[in-house]
Amino acid sequence: MPSSPIRKLVPYAETAKKKGIKVFHLNIGQPDIETPKACLDAVRNSDFKVLEYSHSAGNESYRRKLVAYYAKNNIEVTHNDIIITTGGSEAILFGLMACMDAGDEVIIPEPFYANYNGFAIQADVKVIPIKSSIETGFSLPPIEDFEKAITPRTKAIVVCNPNNPTGYLYSASEMEILKEIIIKHNLFLFADEAYREFCYEGTHTSAMHLKGAENNVVLMDTISKRYSACGGRIGAFVTKNKQVLDAAMKFAQARLSPPSFAQILGEAAVDLPDNYFDTTKAEYKRRRDTIVSRLNSIKGVFCPNPGGAFYAMARLPIDDSDKFCQWLLESFSHNGATIMLAPATGFYSTPGLGKNEVRLAYVLNEESINQAMDVLEEALNQYPGRV
Amino acid sequence: MPSSPIRKLVPYAETAKKKGIKVFHLNIGQPDIETPKACLDAVRNSDFKVLEYSHSAGNESYRRKLVAYYAKNNIEVTHNDIIITTGGSEAILFGLMACMDAGDEVIIPEPFYANYNGFAIQADVKVIPIKSSIETGFSLPPIEDFEKAITPRTKAIVVCNPNNPTGYLYSASEMEILKEIIIKHNLFLFADEAYREFCYEGTHTSAMHLKGAENNVVLMDTISKRYSACGGRIGAFVTKNKQVLDAAMKFAQARLSPPSFAQILGEAAVDLPDNYFDTTKAEYKRRRDTIVSRLNSIKGVFCPNPGGAFYAMARLPIDDSDKFCQWLLESFSHNGATIMLAPATGFYSTPGLGKNEVRLAYVLNEESINQAMDVLEEALNQYPGRV
Repeated sequence: MPSSPIRKLVPYAETAKKKGIKVFHLNIGQPDIETPKACLDAVRNSDFKVLEYSHSAGNESYRRKLVAYYAKNNIEVTHNDIIITTGGSEAILFGLMACMDAGDEVIIPEPFYANYNGFAIQADVKVIPIKSSIETGFSLPPIEDFEKAITPRTKAIVVCNPNNPTGYLYSASEMEILKEIIIKHNLFLFADEAYREFCYEGTHTSAMHLKGAENNVVLMDTISKRYSACGGRIGAFVTKNKQVLDAAMKFAQARLSPPSFAQILGEAAVDLPDNYFDTTKAEYKRRRDTIVSRLNSIKGVFCPNPGGAFYAMARLPIDDSDKFCQWLLESFSHNGATIMLAPATGFYSTPGLGKNEVRLAYVLNEESINQAMDVLEEALNQYPGRV
Repeated sequence: MPSSPIRKLVPYAETAKKKGIKVFHLNIGQPDIETPKACLDAVRNSDFKVLEYSHSAGNESYRRKLVAYYAKNNIEVTHNDIIITTGGSEAILFGLMACMDAGDEVIIPEPFYANYNGFAIQADVKVIPIKSSIETGFSLPPIEDFEKAITPRTKAIVVCNPNNPTGYLYSASEMEILKEIIIKHNLFLFADEAYREFCYEGTHTSAMHLKGAENNVVLMDTISKRYSACGGRIGAFVTKNKQVLDAAMKFAQARLSPPSFAQILGEAAVDLPDNYFDTTKAEYKRRRDTIVSRLNSIKGVFCPNPGGAFYAMARLPIDDSDKFCQWLLESFSHNGATIMLAPATGFYSTPGLGKNEVRLAYVLNEESINQAMDVLEEALNQYPGRV
C-alpha cells in the first residue's frame, strides 16, 4: 500500500507552521467555501434520541431525495439504484470490489486521483494507465491507446469528469468515444463526477447520460466538494445494473451503515435553491482565471486552462516536483509565507512522469491566491533545482 | 463476498411490518438506550462554518481525549497510538490489511461476529475457525486447538471480548493463554473490545493489559455500543506497534478522514460523568437476567449465562435456524407480533454448525423482552420444523 502522495508532506507543513510560517494550502481539495448554513442547521436542529445505524444502503428518505437531485441533472434513477456511501472514497472501493476479481485490470487515463491506486491495491486489481498530456490540456487519450491497453483481464475504465487532478472537462463526443469502447469490449465505466457542478467551459456530460450503456455505467458520487462538506463523509454509488448493485450491497452490509449525521445534511442539500451553485461556481471561475493567468505569467511555467473542477496542473522549470514541494515547506519562505502544492508524480502511475508538474487546488480566495503566486514566483527564482 | 447473514432477513421483516405485524428486533446490536444528550448536544451546538476533512488519523483533540478514556481503563497509550476510524468496522479492516498479506491466515474462535468474514474476504486473508462450544458457554477453546491450527501462514488471532455473538467474557487467565500463544508464535492479537463496559460477571481484561505483548496487540474499538451511537460511525484503531500504525495510516489516508460530526460526539462522550455506564450496565444486566431465565424456562431451550456484551446464544429444538428465523417473519405471529432473531449459522465459519442456535440481542426493554419471549415460546410450539 503506497503512502498518500499528498498527505505525506503534511509533517513538513506542520513543522513550517510551528516555525511561524504561513502556509497557503493549494495542496488538497478542501474548499474554503462555507458549507450551506441550511445544511448544517438541518443537523443542528435534528431531534432524534438515539443515533441509530441507518439502512446499509442509507436512509430511504435521503435516497428518494437524491432521485430528484439526479433528475435535475437529467440522470434518471430510482432510489433502488442508489447506495449511500461513506464518502466518494467508499463508492470507488465498492465499484472495484463489486465488479472485479483479483488480478483484473482497470484502465485509467493518467494523471489520475492518487487514491485510485490505493483502492485498487485494496481490491487487488491492477491499474493500467494511459497517458494524457499537458500539451493537450489532458484531453482524452486517442481511442487507439485504449484499444492497445485492453486485455482479457480488462474489466473497467475509470473517468473522472471534470477531472481531478487536471481540471479537464470531457466533451460530449469524448464521452461517446468512451461509450463505444465500453460497449465494444463489454467493460464497466466507473464515473467519478464529484465536481459535476463546477464546469466553466461548456456543459457536463454525465456517464449516466450515455444511452445504451446503462448496464455498464457505475457513478461514484460525493457531496464533499459540491456542498463543501468534505468532513461529512457522504457519497453515493449509483448504477442501473442490478447485479452490480447487489454485489456492492454485500460490502455495504459488512460495514453496517454510512454516517447518520451527514445523511441529514445531504438530504437538506437537495432542497437548496436552484441557484445555489451559481455563486460558488462564479467564485471558483474567478479563482481559476486568476491562478491560470498568474501561473502562465511566470517565466518557464505552463498551465493549460482547466474547464472544470477546482484544480490546475502546471509544468514548472524544476528538476523534481517531490523535492520542490518538500523544499517549499522545509527551506523556503517569502514575506513569512510559503505554499503547499501536490507533486504531480503522485498522480501518475508510470514511474518518472510528472516530475516537472504540480497540482494546484484553487480553494483559497483570490487575495490568498495572488499572495501564493507571489510566493511561487519567488520560490522558482531561488530553488536550487531550477532547470 | 457473502451476504450479511443478519441483514439478508431484512426484506422479510419489512414485509411482515407491511402486513401490520409488530416485529421485536432481537436480531441486531442496535441498542434502544438513548444516546447521551450531552453528546448529541455537542454536535447540535457546534458552530464551525466549513465541514472540513479532519486529519486522516482523526482530530488530534479527540485522540488526546481518548488517551484519558483509555487511562481510566488502565490502558496506557498516547494520541500517536490511535487512528480514529469509520466505525469499528474500519478498524477491523485496517488491521487485517495492515498486518497481513494475501493468503495469510487469521484464527478466530467460532461462533464469531459474521462481518469478520466479509472483511477477511476484502483483505484476501483466510479465516481459520476454532470451535468454541455452547456447553461451556463458549469459553476459550483449549490451547491445543490453537496449536493445531497454526501454520506458517498464520499471522493473527482475533478475540472479541466480551464476545459478540456469544456474550462470553474472557477471564484474565484465558487472556494470558492467548498472550502466550501470540508471543510463542509471533502473531498479532486483534482485540475487538466494543463491549468493554458491559461486563456483568467479573472484570474486563483488555488485550492492552497484557504485559510484554505490546507489539503484538491491535485494539479495534468503537463508540457505537458504548454510547449507543451506532450511526456515528466512529471507532478507533489502537496499537503501540509503530510499524503497524504506519501501515494502517496509509489506508486511513486513502479514504481521507473519518466522519467529522461524530468525532465531536465522541469527544464529548469522554467527558460524561464516571458513573455514566452504571445505569446502562444495570439496565442491560436486568435484561440479560430476564431473557436468559425466560429462555431456559422454555422446554428444549438452552442458554448459557453470558458474562458481558448484550447478546445471548440459545440452542433451540429446531431443524434449521435460517429456516426458523425466516418462518418467524414470513409465516408466524402471536398476538399480532413476531420476533426477528439472528440465525447462528452466520456466526460459524464451519458449514453445518449453528443450525440449532440463534443469537438474541437484548437491546429492548424488559417488557418487550418478555413479550418477545412469549412469541418465541408459542413459535416453538407451532414451528413445523421442531425437533
